[in-house]
Amino acid sequence: MINIAILGFGVIGSGCAEVLTKNKAIIEKRLNKEINIKYILDLRNFPNNKFGNLIVHNFETILNDADVSIVVEMMGGSHPAYDFSIAALKAGKHVVTSNKEVVANFGAELLATAAKNNVRYMFEASVGGGIPLIRPMINDLAPNNILSIDGILNGTTNYILTQMTENNKTFGEALTEAQGKGYAEANPSADIEGIDAARKIVILSAIAFSKMIDTDDINVEGINEISTYDIVVAEKLGYTVKLIAHAEKTDGKITAFVSPRYVSKSNPLYYINDVFNGILINTDILGQVMFYGQGAGSLPTASSVVADIIDIIAHMDSAAANISWENALKSDIASFNDYISSSCLSFIGNISDVSKISAVFGNVDISYKDNFLYFISSKMSESDMLVAINNCPLKLRSRIKIL
Amino acid sequence: MINIAILGFGVIGSGCAEVLTKNKAIIEKRLNKEINIKYILDLRNFPNNKFGNLIVHNFETILNDADVSIVVEMMGGSHPAYDFSIAALKAGKHVVTSNKEVVANFGAELLATAAKNNVRYMFEASVGGGIPLIRPMINDLAPNNILSIDGILNGTTNYILTQMTENNKTFGEALTEAQGKGYAEANPSADIEGIDAARKIVILSAIAFSKMIDTDDINVEGINEISTYDIVVAEKLGYTVKLIAHAEKTDGKITAFVSPRYVSKSNPLYYINDVFNGILINTDILGQVMFYGQGAGSLPTASSVVADIIDIIAHMDSAAANISWENALKSDIASFNDYISSSCLSFIGNISDVSKISAVFGNVDISYKDNFLYFISSKMSESDMLVAINNCPLKLRSRIKIL
Repeated sequence: MINIAILGFGVIGSGCAEVLTKNKAIIEKRLNKEINIKYILDLRNFPNNKFGNLIVHNFETILNDADVSIVVEMMGGSHPAYDFSIAALKAGKHVVTSNKEVVANFGAELLATAAKNNVRYMFEASVGGGIPLIRPMINDLAPNNILSIDGILNGTTNYILTQMTENNKTFGEALTEAQGKGYAEANPSADIEGIDAARKIVILSAIAFSKMIDTDDINVEGINEISTYDIVVAEKLGYTVKLIAHAEKTDGKITAFVSPRYVSKSNPLYYINDVFNGILINTDILGQVMFYGQGAGSLPTASSVVADIIDIIAHMDSAAANISWENALKSDIASFNDYISSSCLSFIGNISDVSKISAVFGNVDISYKDNFLYFISSKMSESDMLVAINNCPLKLRSRIKIL
Repeated sequence: MINIAILGFGVIGSGCAEVLTKNKAIIEKRLNKEINIKYILDLRNFPNNKFGNLIVHNFETILNDADVSIVVEMMGGSHPAYDFSIAALKAGKHVVTSNKEVVANFGAELLATAAKNNVRYMFEASVGGGIPLIRPMINDLAPNNILSIDGILNGTTNYILTQMTENNKTFGEALTEAQGKGYAEANPSADIEGIDAARKIVILSAIAFSKMIDTDDINVEGINEISTYDIVVAEKLGYTVKLIAHAEKTDGKITAFVSPRYVSKSNPLYYINDVFNGILINTDILGQVMFYGQGAGSLPTASSVVADIIDIIAHMDSAAANISWENALKSDIASFNDYISSSCLSFIGNISDVSKISAVFGNVDISYKDNFLYFISSKMSESDMLVAINNCPLKLRSRIKIL
């Protein structure tokens, strides 16, 4: 029998207990071993819950119990989640987490600590919720050099953009609706400002390139400035707006950033709607491969957590096979100023102002709508783009990069 | 150093040698071990090929060499591929295959033989080419009960249907073009008649439900009867035509079949075009999850083969973790007559014949085009549908099930 302890009895922690109970039969058939939830750590009591009798309030109880071999950290936030994880690994316990903040901030150290103590640190649920993603990237894509990743990694913002596109909602209306449905939190800033997606692309980038970038070092733009106008222009030009977390390694240097992008119909991410996530990976051998499914939610996320628990137990008799990440040096990271893309640009102006745009942006196909002139620029670096925008005498209304 | 032998130096076998050579550095960094291709079995010689010096013509050379621990069977066809695989497993060698025919016909026996000899039998490349699919199904979906699978599993037929839909080609024109591009073989019957997809859904169904159905026991309908008319009607009704391999387990019984289906825009499979494959899986915990990528091709398929080799080597020190399948009994399989769906039906007739349809199919929304009357039926069992079609005095032009 394998004893586990769950830290945090919130949405994911309770989902995890639920999945382990509901599908106990198939899980144990697979492993030929019984999994027992011995403790659930939470500040609260749950007297009427079927798992209520497992609640403990002191992490030391779990840490000092040699019978607990797997700690399932579902607390959220950096502290004390990080501290408990480190302590558990040092005590020779495997750790499974859904906590993207901890993985994005301390992943390299946690993986090294796990390796040193011959246990595993697993985090399939930290990106893409229930979607099989991290394990397939590590195992199935192992023969490949990953060239780039483009992910719709945040369900809340994708829901808002879908509502704005399909039902002509304003950003504010769509956000209120997302909050009503429980897709967005009361304080939705981590989602809509792109911070959640940024943490996730830091994790995927580390898996792909073995280097962990500091989340603070990547350029993050959310969807809070996206207007109905941007959505309408996207449609007119054959695009749709998606919040894309992008990472690539080119000439040995990593570029990672999060921003709204115009996505064309030829890209499979165009069709990822509502709260679904989609992650498109491009490799040297496989070409394009995409993973699609529910990026959040209690049970889907718990599915990934339990898959990690099964993976640990299935390989308990062998040497721990941890991946390892180094913290990225400045020299590992490309300057965002050098990133090359084309953009859809809108300037405030009239038909008579077309020549002012051509003078700076060359021979581009300019359209006019409601006192705005918009067009797709040629490809240029971020720094050249900023210079060009500055050189144009018209006032910029919006700029969205084309994926 | 791990010595491997490749059986068959065709498209996949040579791709496998290529990937192992091209990405030697990342593969060996991952494993901390060197992989050496010791032999390549083929009837032919390849004097000018860089791997030409590894060619042997006698399987016994490989079988009797105790240094060879992994046999990579890329021969195609049932025999001698099956015989060599069984012999290799019995000799204590791991076997990796891309051969869907062997897995679909002999998978249960090969897995049992592998388990008995404490080695592994791996076949990620047998379905979905380069797409990470089988390993994620086994590992990541382990906490889930899989409810159903719908796959676009054959790139050739998907290419033909895409050409018919997007470029108004006839079936014949699209097939000729597919052959010209190397997507379809000179004798394309296994693809267009749905046999290739049938073998693949047998494998996925066995992974999902641990029961192997005989390919001969499943209903298989290809795309050779799909006409431009069916494509046009699909578009008018908001659907597209896809060859769908379906498997589900309902009330303890498995239904599996292959047929062209009308797929709606709300289904992610609608958007899988050209030679790409997409596999949509529905589970009790995760809901919908989809895998997308290149379902064929030398290098993508080799990526899956090499991922299997890496998996074997990474876990060589632990007990072999084989899955096991039982051959399905008749009592495990649902009667296809009981399968319930709605269909798009077309009958030869005029506006004046509408009442003849309503008399049999009830209050359905009937459209008229070019001497045909078409409509979407209500949901009914296959057997009821056949009775209804028989009771209708008009001649059936075509029937396509709605997904």
